[in-house]
Amino acid sequence: MRDDFPRYLAKELDAADPLADLRDRFVIGDDDLIYLDGNSLGRLPAATPAHLDRLVRQGWGDQLVRSWPTWIEWGRRLGDRLAAHALGARPGEVVVSDSTSVNLYKLAAAALDAAGGRRTILVDAEDFPTDRYVLQGLAQARGLTLRMLPSDLDEGLRLHELRAALDTDVALVVLSAVSYRSGALLDMAAVNAAAREVGAVVLWDLCHAVGAVPVELEASGAELAVGCTYKYLNGGPGAPAFLYVRRELQSRLRQPIQGWFGQRDQFLMGADYDPAPGVDRFLVGTPPILSLAALDPALDVLAEAGVARIRAKGRRLGELIVALTDAWLTPHGFRVASPRDPDRRGGHVSLHHPEALRISRALATQARVVGDYRTPDRLRLGPAPLYTRYVDVWDAMDRLRDLAERRAWEHVPGEPSRVT
Amino acid sequence: MRDDFPRYLAKELDAADPLADLRDRFVIGDDDLIYLDGNSLGRLPAATPAHLDRLVRQGWGDQLVRSWPTWIEWGRRLGDRLAAHALGARPGEVVVSDSTSVNLYKLAAAALDAAGGRRTILVDAEDFPTDRYVLQGLAQARGLTLRMLPSDLDEGLRLHELRAALDTDVALVVLSAVSYRSGALLDMAAVNAAAREVGAVVLWDLCHAVGAVPVELEASGAELAVGCTYKYLNGGPGAPAFLYVRRELQSRLRQPIQGWFGQRDQFLMGADYDPAPGVDRFLVGTPPILSLAALDPALDVLAEAGVARIRAKGRRLGELIVALTDAWLTPHGFRVASPRDPDRRGGHVSLHHPEALRISRALATQARVVGDYRTPDRLRLGPAPLYTRYVDVWDAMDRLRDLAERRAWEHVPGEPSRVT
Repeated sequence: MRDDFPRYLAKELDAADPLADLRDRFVIGDDDLIYLDGNSLGRLPAATPAHLDRLVRQGWGDQLVRSWPTWIEWGRRLGDRLAAHALGARPGEVVVSDSTSVNLYKLAAAALDAAGGRRTILVDAEDFPTDRYVLQGLAQARGLTLRMLPSDLDEGLRLHELRAALDTDVALVVLSAVSYRSGALLDMAAVNAAAREVGAVVLWDLCHAVGAVPVELEASGAELAVGCTYKYLNGGPGAPAFLYVRRELQSRLRQPIQGWFGQRDQFLMGADYDPAPGVDRFLVGTPPILSLAALDPALDVLAEAGVARIRAKGRRLGELIVALTDAWLTPHGFRVASPRDPDRRGGHVSLHHPEALRISRALATQARVVGDYRTPDRLRLGPAPLYTRYVDVWDAMDRLRDLAERRAWEHVPGEPSRVT
Repeated sequence: MRDDFPRYLAKELDAADPLADLRDRFVIGDDDLIYLDGNSLGRLPAATPAHLDRLVRQGWGDQLVRSWPTWIEWGRRLGDRLAAHALGARPGEVVVSDSTSVNLYKLAAAALDAAGGRRTILVDAEDFPTDRYVLQGLAQARGLTLRMLPSDLDEGLRLHELRAALDTDVALVVLSAVSYRSGALLDMAAVNAAAREVGAVVLWDLCHAVGAVPVELEASGAELAVGCTYKYLNGGPGAPAFLYVRRELQSRLRQPIQGWFGQRDQFLMGADYDPAPGVDRFLVGTPPILSLAALDPALDVLAEAGVARIRAKGRRLGELIVALTDAWLTPHGFRVASPRDPDRRGGHVSLHHPEALRISRALATQARVVGDYRTPDRLRLGPAPLYTRYVDVWDAMDRLRDLAERRAWEHVPGEPSRVT
């Protein structure tokens, strides 16, 4: 089968790739390492170190507290940049703030408080842990029912399962646009419409979607969303998260963590909390400026590429992983554990193998291919169209095949570690 | 009066200052600018730019996701460093995480949930806005009573006022160890003892205390605390905050934001939230690593100086401000608006003047002295013993006197701005 898709064809795809030049906009020191974990932590944009150094030396070191009139707008300014370049949202609908978990808590709590007598929360049973945990806490504290929607580990949530669970007792539905494990991509407009029919609000987790697939928050009728900026957006490790609240909803919602950054006329320091008009009311405390700063050079590259082109290339990179898995890896016990239809798949592809944990370790240490493991038996491969070449995917799959032929993972430890 | 304390005496104090050499451990590009706002944003440690650049290029750029096994411990590791060098707490009692506002919310909510039928929260009426706002939100959501303790704008909260308000209905008392406006320093051990007598829990806000005065959380019997790291700790703009939960309390408390970083065996990604043992249960989401990283070089300097020596110098710097205000500025309508007893004052000194806003602006733009304004009529001067010299204080007061003699602020705009 090796000759079915020879390496030179991957090289030709790279030669024709309209995004090929953008790879130089990232730091790629070690050309032999194949990095397929852009869905966990995106690469370092080449402009970022100097940008941060300038901020640290000038903005902090020289200007000191006099920089705050600029910095104080960053949560909002970066939110507007994200809205325009990655989220299909309008100005004044997105802020960058806190972590995804904290933002999920704020928006879920706000939505539940505004939900009248409705007492049910729906969540994908296979959704990312923090989403489920945050909702468990909120449901328990308020005596609400948290219903886990049955979800297929490979194919993700089916719309008919959601429809069957939607009734007029549902206050809130929390779903990932792209599933963290399978990469299954939901039809956001269809979900929003189905929820709207019964008067429920959908809160989207966009962590694995933003920067990988077009997210059209306004056009899809989305009301609430959160997401992180350190995966396909390349904002750096633990970069602050974002939240989106549709303009029409903002004045009706009040979030639970009433911090001074969400206060109207913050520096009047008035006696009573009075939420700021607009999306600023969803801010809380002083934001980590160094981590925020790294978003600007990252968004510059994203804006130049455009999400549509990123998606077009991402589909093809995913197709290549699926085709080479079928051709090369099936005999070795691998199976594609993501939707096979590229329209139903986000930026990453999961492979099933009973030894996935050992394999992901052997792949990194012996074959210099960084993907990652997800419970219970999934190997995730997350090419990032801004810097992953077709030939990188070809080589990674070739190295994986080589490992498989030698069952090279057999002596690798298989115990779970605290970080996998 | 000018001759009562001539400038050469300030120079002599600097010559005898055991911390004098540490000034070189900070970036001080513009020697003519006198920076007395270390209580808002501490200066840039000289080692920080290279430290961050290495983290960015190597930790992120080269090692990528493979750095996470190191990074994932940082919230706890940095918490332990803070515990040892600045907080008088034991290992495993402090984590660095989120913002002060979010941490205050988490710990206040956890304490209220564990408070049985008690229905009253006490807070200093003059405490920092975010503290009051967060508590208003919690009280409102739970139908509790939030009582504002009367507090003197200059002298801070009096212990007898607190004692009078403490009864067995009090669940939680939130107080700043050092008041953000007046600089008034509370006797933490006395407050903790008084609260313990009626079975109430005290949650300390240490933002203006940590790194300025010795904080002995264990010895003073403190149970809960939060604080920021960007003032006297020099962690950088918006650097992540810390929280402290006394070891004996940890297993009894459960915080409301159930994120995956607070989960036992985080990467098993289990179905149900099961809080981690110990202080880790108060973590929430993925932390901003770039902002966390800046804490290490900052804590290196702090550890070398030692808080006791910082406090000793800080007292004397404060005494100099008080003495020169009395001598030079009283005729021009200034008044010391902080406790005059240095044992009852933290690291900064507030001056009262009806034109404080205009004066703080004139001071920065015309005299190159950066202090800050706080409502309604306070000019805050915050020397930082690690890098502020006695002669800096002398020169700043001299420049302020010069402005006052000319009433140089009369044509400066006096409208509040969004950032002051």
